[in-house]
Amino acid sequence: MVSQDTSAARHFVEKRTILFGECDPAGILYTPRICEYIVEGALRFLSACLGEPFERYMFAKDLTLPARNLTVDFLRPLTWDDEIEIRAGLLEMRTHSYTVQISAFDASGNAAFSGRITQVCVGHKSRRVEAVPDNFRAGLLQGPQPD
Amino acid sequence: MVSQDTSAARHFVEKRTILFGECDPAGILYTPRICEYIVEGALRFLSACLGEPFERYMFAKDLTLPARNLTVDFLRPLTWDDEIEIRAGLLEMRTHSYTVQISAFDASGNAAFSGRITQVCVGHKSRRVEAVPDNFRAGLLQGPQPD
Amino acid sequence: MVSQDTSAARHFVEKRTILFGECDPAGILYTPRICEYIVEGALRFLSACLGEPFERYMFAKDLTLPARNLTVDFLRPLTWDDEIEIRAGLLEMRTHSYTVQISAFDASGNAAFSGRITQVCVGHKSRRVEAVPDNFRAGLLQGPQPD
Amino acid sequence: MVSQDTSAARHFVEKRTILFGECDPAGILYTPRICEYIVEGALRFLSACLGEPFERYMFAKDLTLPARNLTVDFLRPLTWDDEIEIRAGLLEMRTHSYTVQISAFDASGNAAFSGRITQVCVGHKSRRVEAVPDNFRAGLLQGPQPD
Repeated sequence: MVSQDTSAARHFVEKRTILFGECDPAGILYTPRICEYIVEGALRFLSACLGEPFERYMFAKDLTLPARNLTVDFLRPLTWDDEIEIRAGLLEMRTHSYTVQISAFDASGNAAFSGRITQVCVGHKSRRVEAVPDNFRAGLLQGPQPD
Repeated sequence: MVSQDTSAARHFVEKRTILFGECDPAGILYTPRICEYIVEGALRFLSACLGEPFERYMFAKDLTLPARNLTVDFLRPLTWDDEIEIRAGLLEMRTHSYTVQISAFDASGNAAFSGRITQVCVGHKSRRVEAVPDNFRAGLLQGPQPD
Repeated sequence: MVSQDTSAARHFVEKRTILFGECDPAGILYTPRICEYIVEGALRFLSACLGEPFERYMFAKDLTLPARNLTVDFLRPLTWDDEIEIRAGLLEMRTHSYTVQISAFDASGNAAFSGRITQVCVGHKSRRVEAVPDNFRAGLLQGPQPD
Repeated sequence: MVSQDTSAARHFVEKRTILFGECDPAGILYTPRICEYIVEGALRFLSACLGEPFERYMFAKDLTLPARNLTVDFLRPLTWDDEIEIRAGLLEMRTHSYTVQISAFDASGNAAFSGRITQVCVGHKSRRVEAVPDNFRAGLLQGPQPD
């Protein structure tokens, strides 16, 4: 069930320090917060690939990109003040959907969690599955733009 | 990827009304909130099987039950004021871990999302994997106690 | 700074059990979660006064009701599995705004926290302050409708 | 009710970009999230004044610092992709408690929200109010340490 994260093409997303209030009474980063990190990390990655804010682009195209599946493996517990590095990469590109992988590494370089989110392209009004727009597809395949 | 939810043994957990503040600017229940529903639903199910609050039982036994994997399929979008019914069931029992399935059904009886969470039994001090305690195992296999 | 809650006209909103994941590593209900309880409780109270879902009513009227001020006194710490009763009441009605008070009581009947939220009526397009609509004002002054 | 933020001694805490998922279906940063920003901002400010992580310091001293009051004025709505600067400062120092002010400014330099949080020093075991420790008091009065 462990996601091996051996890709050389893994892209930096952000550094993050686990906050006190994100941990539960056992002192561990609460599971739903990890899902939030993954969803937020994927959105940042998509914006970086697109070269502009992802959600506004989608609204302007009259598209929505609902999540279809989210899978997370929790590999090592994290606690407050831990510093992690979150990396993302495109795992699979399809006609109407794609899968992004998001992994977090602790200060020793060990994977703490690794998740995959699949989003499907759906017309806002039509409510039908549509092809991923060409320039977004090209951006995803090329990876994040340098700042 | 769709989780068929045909089990006759699926147990009721709770009814829930989607809140305005749980939805994103697209008007849809935000993905990380669904993960929160699943984790909270699993904890309620475990407490109901055990016949007492799950987390306090684990603290008293000096055990922790960290999540090992969470998988969610998002089947239909939900929006605020939608009423859902959340059901849970034991999917698999192993020596040191178990998997609980949590599904949500909308007012028409259609599955809106379906997730599975796997938790591993780990000693709080030993930090080693341990067998699931016998009475907790028995409670899980038997299902929720009537109130 | 303590809000005395002596009003006989205080209305029931809901019972709630504090969840494990809502507490911080000190084992105490995390402060921002209390703010969430208050905002959600106020929305439920407003819907109950109006006799229909508050946010949809506002959208239909092309109005927004942004919060102008939120004040909370934290009187007793709450921890997981604690059961609280949340009560709400109208504290003050003005032409363009109103203030709702939300208080939580523990199983012994002691106030655990007490907050006040003030919302202002603003036109969605005009972005100008407007008068609170008459039927909403009447509903607020009359209090929650019986189910 | 507006908090004037004219202090020259206001300290930088962090820059933050409002996330899509932090906004509600009206497209506005959801009120409880602002409370979370304030509580998290205060914790960061306290750590910066102390020169070490605040919560771990408190745990080591066997102290807790529960919030006693939180007050927020919401001055301008914020939406996703908005960049804000959060600044903090000590508003008042007392024997057993203190009040921190946290304000957020938008890209034009206008205050978007301004909050004050009061925390009281309480012994973890004694559950009694205690004096704020001397070195923490000195750190707070001196302000954040340079990195």
